[in-house]
Amino acid sequence: MKKKPLILVTNDDGISAPGIRALISVMKEIGEVVVVAPDSPQSGTGHAITINSTLFLNKISQGDDTPVEYSCSGTPVDCVKFAVNEVLGRKPDLCVSGINHGSNSSINVIYSGTMSAAVEAGIEGIPAIGFSLLDYDWNADFEPVKKFVKKIALEVLENGLPEGVILNVNFPKLSEKEIKGIKVCRQAKAMWAEKFDKRTSPMGRDYYWLTGKFVNQDNGEDTDEWALKHGYISLVPVQFDLTAHHAIQNLNTWKLNDNS
Amino acid sequence: MKKKPLILVTNDDGISAPGIRALISVMKEIGEVVVVAPDSPQSGTGHAITINSTLFLNKISQGDDTPVEYSCSGTPVDCVKFAVNEVLGRKPDLCVSGINHGSNSSINVIYSGTMSAAVEAGIEGIPAIGFSLLDYDWNADFEPVKKFVKKIALEVLENGLPEGVILNVNFPKLSEKEIKGIKVCRQAKAMWAEKFDKRTSPMGRDYYWLTGKFVNQDNGEDTDEWALKHGYISLVPVQFDLTAHHAIQNLNTWKLNDNS
Repeated sequence: MKKKPLILVTNDDGISAPGIRALISVMKEIGEVVVVAPDSPQSGTGHAITINSTLFLNKISQGDDTPVEYSCSGTPVDCVKFAVNEVLGRKPDLCVSGINHGSNSSINVIYSGTMSAAVEAGIEGIPAIGFSLLDYDWNADFEPVKKFVKKIALEVLENGLPEGVILNVNFPKLSEKEIKGIKVCRQAKAMWAEKFDKRTSPMGRDYYWLTGKFVNQDNGEDTDEWALKHGYISLVPVQFDLTAHHAIQNLNTWKLNDNS
Repeated sequence: MKKKPLILVTNDDGISAPGIRALISVMKEIGEVVVVAPDSPQSGTGHAITINSTLFLNKISQGDDTPVEYSCSGTPVDCVKFAVNEVLGRKPDLCVSGINHGSNSSINVIYSGTMSAAVEAGIEGIPAIGFSLLDYDWNADFEPVKKFVKKIALEVLENGLPEGVILNVNFPKLSEKEIKGIKVCRQAKAMWAEKFDKRTSPMGRDYYWLTGKFVNQDNGEDTDEWALKHGYISLVPVQFDLTAHHAIQNLNTWKLNDNS
């Protein structure tokens, strides 16, 4: 029998979030699990790293048959860097991040701490998956998606992933029976139309809350938004080579080196 | 004569950094300038946004012939959202971010607050450029690059940019005469090999500083790293559609929907 795979688990909602607890319970069925996750919620931190401040790492005591867990004062990306360089003795076979409370489909991928943790693992050469459920509720029900989380993780362990590619998996808020299947998709073109909610503090100073409305600008039936709207789990391969290769030829026609 | 273009200026080193002051001085020569920049250094914040905390925006008094400037308590991406939704009466013709004190070439693009501000402008449909100088010194000399900043900004104002594309421009630390020209490049494949510097606080608690060594894994002569090393300014077109389109076909061969 093959050795159990070593699986790193992290998230951005913090180590005590129900979503990461659900993810840990699934990963325990298929591998040796080590958890390094933020000690507080870090939603919307994107690919932030902590370079102008100090970091703390706390080992959390668990029973003998439970995974080794560490909480970290930094961002999700810091957690992955800590895990790889300070905690794990060897490169893990898989890194899973989530399950996020709320969508990381479409343009949300770029703001998401959950996905940025997976991307960081990808940069370090570790097969990685970010999982998100379209339910922002702290008490969201993760039971219906556990079967699919396990299936996708096992596929990645078996097949590996192309170099420079990680997976962004989003689950619709549906019962297991209602879910129609898994669709490989592209990221829908979308954006947030922001609205700043202006208020006044007790000291009379104006302050703002960032709020916004998600605007899908893409009707394509091959997008993650389409899949999720139609009852499918969306699976988008994500890359961290951000070069717009298709634009290079056009830019080379510019007169950038004329001495005019 | 055409109306002066409206130019939004931001950065991640904070509104008082010499790099943004240099950028403002160049942009004043070609357009109407509005500045919305972080009130403190925000290096390494990536595409973070502030959703779990409040935001403050302060108008900074200036003389009549100087640009309108606002400092913001949030991240570089927050600054762009603030500018577009609360400060500017119309969509700007150009957003420039920087000039960053230090490199944002290669994989640094993903950690960079400077570049994330430009990416956010791109998402909002604004032609955008991030500028960085390969000198981390607060007192870095930005004079040698001003001519090139102006040239590239004018080219973008004249030609526009392909949809979904923004520019990542890095300058070598050289005199104007030593700079060989501008090269359109792709992002080099590279990573940071982290080292956590462990220390003990006066209270006896362990803490860490994140440090690391940049490792270029790419010998390609079409990369930004190659260009910078050989005396060129690197110009990389960057996209925020993170889909790894080339991986979709392969993933569709996986048995994701078998009921085994």
